[in-house]
Amino acid sequence: MLRRAAQLCMVCLGVLVAGRTFAQEPPKWFLAIHGGAGRLPRDLAPAEVAAIQDALQRALEAGAQVLAAGGSSLDAVQRAVSVMESSGVLNAGRGAVLNHGGFAELDAALMDGSNRKAGAVAAVRHVANPIDLARQVMDHSKHVLLVGEGAEQFAREQGVKLVPGAYFVTDRRRRELQRAIDGEKKAKPVAASQSVYPHGTVGAVALDSQGNLAAATSTGGLTNKHVGRVGDSPIVGAGTYAENGVCAVSATGVGEVFIRYTAAADVCARARYRNESVGAAADEVIRELKAAGGEGGMIALDASGNLAIPYSSETMLRGQVSSLQPPEVVVEIRK
Amino acid sequence: MLRRAAQLCMVCLGVLVAGRTFAQEPPKWFLAIHGGAGRLPRDLAPAEVAAIQDALQRALEAGAQVLAAGGSSLDAVQRAVSVMESSGVLNAGRGAVLNHGGFAELDAALMDGSNRKAGAVAAVRHVANPIDLARQVMDHSKHVLLVGEGAEQFAREQGVKLVPGAYFVTDRRRRELQRAIDGEKKAKPVAASQSVYPHGTVGAVALDSQGNLAAATSTGGLTNKHVGRVGDSPIVGAGTYAENGVCAVSATGVGEVFIRYTAAADVCARARYRNESVGAAADEVIRELKAAGGEGGMIALDASGNLAIPYSSETMLRGQVSSLQPPEVVVEIRK
Repeated sequence: MLRRAAQLCMVCLGVLVAGRTFAQEPPKWFLAIHGGAGRLPRDLAPAEVAAIQDALQRALEAGAQVLAAGGSSLDAVQRAVSVMESSGVLNAGRGAVLNHGGFAELDAALMDGSNRKAGAVAAVRHVANPIDLARQVMDHSKHVLLVGEGAEQFAREQGVKLVPGAYFVTDRRRRELQRAIDGEKKAKPVAASQSVYPHGTVGAVALDSQGNLAAATSTGGLTNKHVGRVGDSPIVGAGTYAENGVCAVSATGVGEVFIRYTAAADVCARARYRNESVGAAADEVIRELKAAGGEGGMIALDASGNLAIPYSSETMLRGQVSSLQPPEVVVEIRK
Repeated sequence: MLRRAAQLCMVCLGVLVAGRTFAQEPPKWFLAIHGGAGRLPRDLAPAEVAAIQDALQRALEAGAQVLAAGGSSLDAVQRAVSVMESSGVLNAGRGAVLNHGGFAELDAALMDGSNRKAGAVAAVRHVANPIDLARQVMDHSKHVLLVGEGAEQFAREQGVKLVPGAYFVTDRRRRELQRAIDGEKKAKPVAASQSVYPHGTVGAVALDSQGNLAAATSTGGLTNKHVGRVGDSPIVGAGTYAENGVCAVSATGVGEVFIRYTAAADVCARARYRNESVGAAADEVIRELKAAGGEGGMIALDASGNLAIPYSSETMLRGQVSSLQPPEVVVEIRK
């Protein structure tokens, strides 16, 4: 109930703050971000919480700067995600979770709602900011999705400096992997909702002053995943989707279920074909995913700047900023 | 007009053959396959045409055998695609097109409409039958999509014997790659519709006697693609999708556009949310894809065994068989 109220509150915040009973002017531009859905570890030190809050705040500010200057939603979501990737405290870029082989493999995608162009990379091991490489795939290749070795070859062709695998590894992620592997050996696998703090994935959706929607998502995936495993984040229509006039979605959760249910595309299809509000559609899709074993959440933005943040996990790291509203970050820890 | 008539004819064949004016009993089971959409090379020797016809015929027979014995649609589509992969004359498995590096990288996926489970692999270089590995991902891993090296590591864990890259290479594909690279050098890129014979991709959709739908797709992708490029085939909702009571789709075409437009999922969303017939929905989606630069086609089957085979390219290799109808293969060459 509390969570539900918090969500509704989130959506209505602009109106409540303004203290009016009639509909408020839509924002000229809007940006929302997430830092994953799941459960924050109980042992998270106050300094770590502050570092997460700081990363989200800086991501919002970086994206807002683009949008306030009349920049595109595509540039804004890329910028916001890139900041989160570099923070070292979220499951993307530096600080990503480790796979069964003990190293990070990263996935990212972005999509421009104005022309439905998209770029994505998956299973890259030496790219500090996968979202920036995804943008280069969109802008400088004939392709949408490049994976593994071939994606890194493309990075070199584009002049991207590759980084050693050790760049991504943090002590926290090493400990989490060890716990997951120990749990496996005891035939007591750690539940997905406990194995990582938020399911990991960072993402952003934005509406710019030209009315263009965009979405971006980046992740290290699941702790202890098989080498080569790709989740929903880099899959257009699963973890990432944007279409002008309809919606922009970035999802986070048990990626396998989000892929099978084409989560992001389904939200937009309900809005497009059934005239559902993006909020109602996103709520319903998150419910369906949960029933199918796919805990998680999403940020879903409509063409008027209405945001929904449904999630079925304990919490979701999130934030938003608009032409009408200063940056606001939410990091809840349940004790 | 001719093509359009052929398509309609395809859909209505059962009724026409039966020569009745009232609706015919739906088939107990149904299987359709495709061997790609595009343009068959004008220089294709009669023996090569016969080899393609033979491959499609054998794929239909293998799938039909499963279905006639009461087997599942999932087993049937896997079997049919596996036969096409091994044929050496279609763009999947042995005989796949070659990437810019001069070697084959293969993608495949299948989906079980009864539970929306899916398995997929992408960018594998040493797996003779990627569709069988996709099935193993579905059955024996926690994941949906494995790519590159990690997918091959999984294959070894499953006891799959890897094959050398040379296994996939045929003289025809080597010549096609050389032509594509030469065209690139002359800054006169070969048009997508000419660079390969059918865009390549093989696929199957089926309805079994228990009413379960399934879909499978496998491909070598595009001639001269960047190393690591993944197309729509292994992406749930893009090239492959199945959902009981709604539809099963396997697509083939310019994969990048099919990904951006979530082609297969969109057909099913239109059927699910707008009550469009799968045939009308598939027609409309293929039109939209074409307008966006995405030439290609798809086979789309509804829950009653009604098949649509819309395509925007010159031709599409295809075949069908059901409990009411013997195998029928269509290989058209325009002179």
